[in-house]
Amino acid sequence: MRVVVVGGGFGGLQAVRSLEGAPVELTLIDRQNYHLFQPLVYQVATGALSPAEIASPLRGILKRQKNVHVLLAEVSAFDLERRFVYVNELPNGENGVAIPYDVLIVSAGSRYSYFGHDEWQARAPELKSLEGAVDIRARILTAFEAAEVERDETRRKAWLTFVVVGAGPTGVEIAGQIAELARDTLPNDFRSMDPRSARVLLVETADRVLTTFPASLSKKAEAALEKLGVTTLLGHTVVDVGPELVLMQTSDGDKENVPARTVIWAAGVTASGLAAELARAAGTELDRAGRVTVGPQLTLPGHAEVFAIGDMVRVSDEGGAIVPLPGLAPVAMQQGRFVARVLRDRLQGKEGRSFRYVDKGNLATIGRSKAVADIKGLRLTGFLAWMTWLLVHLVYLVGLQNRLLVLVRWTFSFITHGRGARLITGRARSTG
Amino acid sequence: MRVVVVGGGFGGLQAVRSLEGAPVELTLIDRQNYHLFQPLVYQVATGALSPAEIASPLRGILKRQKNVHVLLAEVSAFDLERRFVYVNELPNGENGVAIPYDVLIVSAGSRYSYFGHDEWQARAPELKSLEGAVDIRARILTAFEAAEVERDETRRKAWLTFVVVGAGPTGVEIAGQIAELARDTLPNDFRSMDPRSARVLLVETADRVLTTFPASLSKKAEAALEKLGVTTLLGHTVVDVGPELVLMQTSDGDKENVPARTVIWAAGVTASGLAAELARAAGTELDRAGRVTVGPQLTLPGHAEVFAIGDMVRVSDEGGAIVPLPGLAPVAMQQGRFVARVLRDRLQGKEGRSFRYVDKGNLATIGRSKAVADIKGLRLTGFLAWMTWLLVHLVYLVGLQNRLLVLVRWTFSFITHGRGARLITGRARSTG
Repeated sequence: MRVVVVGGGFGGLQAVRSLEGAPVELTLIDRQNYHLFQPLVYQVATGALSPAEIASPLRGILKRQKNVHVLLAEVSAFDLERRFVYVNELPNGENGVAIPYDVLIVSAGSRYSYFGHDEWQARAPELKSLEGAVDIRARILTAFEAAEVERDETRRKAWLTFVVVGAGPTGVEIAGQIAELARDTLPNDFRSMDPRSARVLLVETADRVLTTFPASLSKKAEAALEKLGVTTLLGHTVVDVGPELVLMQTSDGDKENVPARTVIWAAGVTASGLAAELARAAGTELDRAGRVTVGPQLTLPGHAEVFAIGDMVRVSDEGGAIVPLPGLAPVAMQQGRFVARVLRDRLQGKEGRSFRYVDKGNLATIGRSKAVADIKGLRLTGFLAWMTWLLVHLVYLVGLQNRLLVLVRWTFSFITHGRGARLITGRARSTG
Repeated sequence: MRVVVVGGGFGGLQAVRSLEGAPVELTLIDRQNYHLFQPLVYQVATGALSPAEIASPLRGILKRQKNVHVLLAEVSAFDLERRFVYVNELPNGENGVAIPYDVLIVSAGSRYSYFGHDEWQARAPELKSLEGAVDIRARILTAFEAAEVERDETRRKAWLTFVVVGAGPTGVEIAGQIAELARDTLPNDFRSMDPRSARVLLVETADRVLTTFPASLSKKAEAALEKLGVTTLLGHTVVDVGPELVLMQTSDGDKENVPARTVIWAAGVTASGLAAELARAAGTELDRAGRVTVGPQLTLPGHAEVFAIGDMVRVSDEGGAIVPLPGLAPVAMQQGRFVARVLRDRLQGKEGRSFRYVDKGNLATIGRSKAVADIKGLRLTGFLAWMTWLLVHLVYLVGLQNRLLVLVRWTFSFITHGRGARLITGRARSTG
C-alpha cells in the first residue's frame, strides 16, 4: 500500500513515525528539508535561539525507518479520482510530477492571514517560518541600530516602537521577548540612546489576550506583560500598515496612527492553501478560516482513503456537528497517531474508530520566569508554570542534541540576561 | 583622541579590546553586527555548526568597554588629508556620513578573487562569509536531494560531483567535510541513490595542497584526503565555470571538462577593496594581491596616524624589504595588539617600536581525527594534531556560550557521525 504524507510538521511526522514497521510504502513530501519546532520560532526572532537548534533534518529523523521515502518538493494539487499528488518542482528542476497513492494524509498546517491585505506582508513579516523569524530578528536588531544613530527625536521614537499584531501565544511571547531584549539584554550595548525607552505595543481585536485560555489566566498574562513593559491594546484592530505608520481602529470606531518602524504579524490564522485544493478536489466547502471539514475518522467526505489532519482541518463528529479543537501541536500529533492506528486497523480488516482529542493542557510563556498553564483545569502561573513550560518544550524538541543546545542557550540567557544569537543576517541591513 | 577602527574581525577587534581603559574615544565600524570566527565558517557549509555558534555580536563583546562606540555601516572611502572616514549608509537610511578621526586603524580583511571572472561567483559561491556558507550548505544538500530524484545516470553523476577550487586550509577542510558528509553522515538518509558515490574534486593550481605548510605535511594531508575519498587535482586551474560544467586546464595545457552542479570557491585571496581606497588616498601602490604596503609600525607611508593591519596589508621593514607574513588570524590579532601598544606609547610620548610576528604555528584539519600542525618546527599529524586543532579553535572562539555549543555539536558529530544543522534555508531550493 502506497501512503503519501504531505507535510513534515507535527501531524505528518507523527503519522509517518507511527507507521514504522507497518507493511506500507511511505512517501513524506515537504517543501522544507527539516521538521520545525514551531512553538519556539519566536525565540529565533529575538536571538535567544539559533535556527538549527529548533529544526531537525527530516531525513535524519527518519533514516532508520526503512519504509519511508522523503521528497523535498512543494505540493500544488490533488487528483482524488485518479489518486495522484502533483508537485510543482523537484530538487533537480523536473516539473509537473505526479505521485500515485493508495492512501493520502495531508497535514499542511496553517499560516497567518493579513485580513485580505497581503500587501502588508513586506512591512509586517509573519512569525511562523524560520525564514520569517530570521527576517524579523534582522529588523528588530536593525531598528535598535538605527535608533542609535538617529538624532531626530521623533524618528528615533518610531525606530524604538515595535508593534506586534495578534495576542495569541506567539504574539504574547514575542512581545514579552522584545521587551526583555530592550530592558535586560541590550541596555549596555548602546551608547547614544537607551534601549529601555523602546515601546512594545501588543494589538489585539478581542477584549483579552490568549483567548484560548481561561479569562483568569488572560488577566494574569496581561499583568505580567505590563510589568515587562508591554503595552497591551485590546479591542484594537490594525486597519492599515504604511511605510512608517500603523493605523489602528478601536472597537468604538476611533482611529489612531502609531509611528512604528517594526511590525510583526501573528494574527488571523488561516489554513494552508492545500485545504482549498482538497476541498476543490472533493467538491466540499471551506470554513471562514480556510479549513476543510473531515469526518470522525479524519477522512474527506466520500474519500475514506484521504485523511487530513492538524490545523488545516475542522473535525465533525458522527452526527455532523463540529468538534471544537484548538490549533495546537498536541492536536496534530494525536491526529497523526490516530490516522496511523486507523490504517493499521484497516490492514487487519478492522474499522470504526473515531478521533477523540485528549486535552493535555495549554501553555504560554510571557518572559523570564513567567508563564501561564491550564492543565486539565489546573491553572498555574508564575515560576511553576514557567518550569512546566520549559520542561515540556525541551521534552518535545526532536533530538537529544537540540535539547542540549537549547538548554545551554536558556541557561546562559537566564544567568546573563543575554541573547547569544542576535545576528543581523539574510537581508539588507537598512529598513530605512 | 578619536580613534576610528574599520573592521571587527580578528585584527580590528583585538586593537579595540587592547585599548580598553585607554584615554581614547573609539569608534568600531563594521558592516556586520557580529565578529565572525572565520576559521570555522566551512563547518557551517556542511551543517556541522550553525551560524550563530561561530559569530558573536560585537556590541555584546564590547558592552562593558565604555570607551567604544560600535557603528553598523559600510565604509566607502577615506579622506586622509582632512581625516574623515566616509560610510555609505547608516542603519537609519542616512547617507553620505563623514566620521572624523585623529587615528585610523583599518582592518578590512580579504576575500577570494575569481581570477578576474566575477561572473563565476553566482555559480561558485565563496566560502568566507556566513551568508556564503549558508548558501553553500543549501547547494550541497540540494544536490543530494536532486540526485535522489534524478533518474538519468549522467545527470545524477553531475549532481553528485562537488568541485572545490583552491587547496588552502579552507579548501582542504571543506573538501574533507563534504567527503565525510557523503560517506559517514548521509548514507542512511537516502533510498534511491548512494551518497557514497559522490565525487569530491579538490582543484589546485600549485603542485601540492596547503602550500603554506612544509611539503612533508602537504603529502600527509593529500594522503588523508585521498583516504576520505577526495580526489586532489594538483597542477589544475579552473578556466571556465559553465552552468553545469567546470573547465580545467592542467599545467601541461590539457583541458578537461567536468560535469558538476556544485562548485565552491576558496581560491585566489585578494585584499578588501578598502586597501585600494587607502592606497589611492595615500598615493601609493597595491601589490598583485591587492594589498597596501605599510611600514614597520604598520602605518601608511607619510601617515603616522593611519594604521592598516591584517591580510589586507603587506609589511615592509625598516630597510623597505617586505616581511613575509601568512594571511592568518594570529597575525591580524598580534598586529591589533601591536597598534594598541603603539598608541598607548604615543600617548606617553614614546616612539619607535617595530612589529615582530611571533609564529605560534599553523594548523589545518582534514576530517574526523585527522589534522596537520606545524608548530615552531614541530610537525604533528593524525589524532594528536587533531586534538590540538580542536583545543586551539575552542579556546579562540569568542564567548563561553559558543564554546559550549560548539563542543556539544562536535561531540555529537564525533559519536553519531551526524551533522545536526544541515538545513536548506535562505535560497530557492532548486539549483536546476
